[in-house]
Amino acid sequence: MNHRIILLAHGSSDKRWCETFEGLAAPTLSAVPHSQVAYMELAEPSLEDTVADGVSAGVREFTVVPLFLAAGRHLRKDVPAMIASLEQTHNVKIVLAPPIGENPLLGQAIKDVVVHQLESSDA
Amino acid sequence: MNHRIILLAHGSSDKRWCETFEGLAAPTLSAVPHSQVAYMELAEPSLEDTVADGVSAGVREFTVVPLFLAAGRHLRKDVPAMIASLEQTHNVKIVLAPPIGENPLLGQAIKDVVVHQLESSDA
Repeated sequence: MNHRIILLAHGSSDKRWCETFEGLAAPTLSAVPHSQVAYMELAEPSLEDTVADGVSAGVREFTVVPLFLAAGRHLRKDVPAMIASLEQTHNVKIVLAPPIGENPLLGQAIKDVVVHQLESSDA
Repeated sequence: MNHRIILLAHGSSDKRWCETFEGLAAPTLSAVPHSQVAYMELAEPSLEDTVADGVSAGVREFTVVPLFLAAGRHLRKDVPAMIASLEQTHNVKIVLAPPIGENPLLGQAIKDVVVHQLESSDA
């Protein structure tokens, strides 16, 4: 497989934060072949290491899907700069997809979660 | 109504970030009566102002639902401290719900979004 999907999370020094993300990503990892989680900062595996591992295995194209609710400085500036540098270093193509929060499906899911949450706490 | 639901987002100085969040929250705001968005920092309205406004309108109980994918330092430390201070200042009850990302429904929705995203970009 010459194409990998990287689910990019922000990262945190708090292990519980990363565990929550791994849980969130689990259904996607099961459904999407050749997908894996990487962290922008503060946790492992890093985006850099994940791309380098893929390159070692012969991967030439990556799609980075940000598990972010919205695009701020990180996704507008830091991550594109990291990607440009990695493309140059490894001579590969890396496509940065929009953050998941820009898809209206996610707003519907948030509504379901909040309604469910409020009903549970009333019980 | 003596109970308000506050959808708490992190906040950003980037207006586009806040606009994405308002879009994400729109279905919830439509579905959940007496709900509104507030920001932890860097954007308006703040959590403090939102609680103060509610108190002025006679609200005595608030539920804060964090629109966060996972709980890190902000939700484990900063927000609980803000809430404790607001409870004391206004003599009200403020319940902090878990972040939306801890609900397995959200992981399923993320899978749908990522699969949809990848199918669209193949087209």
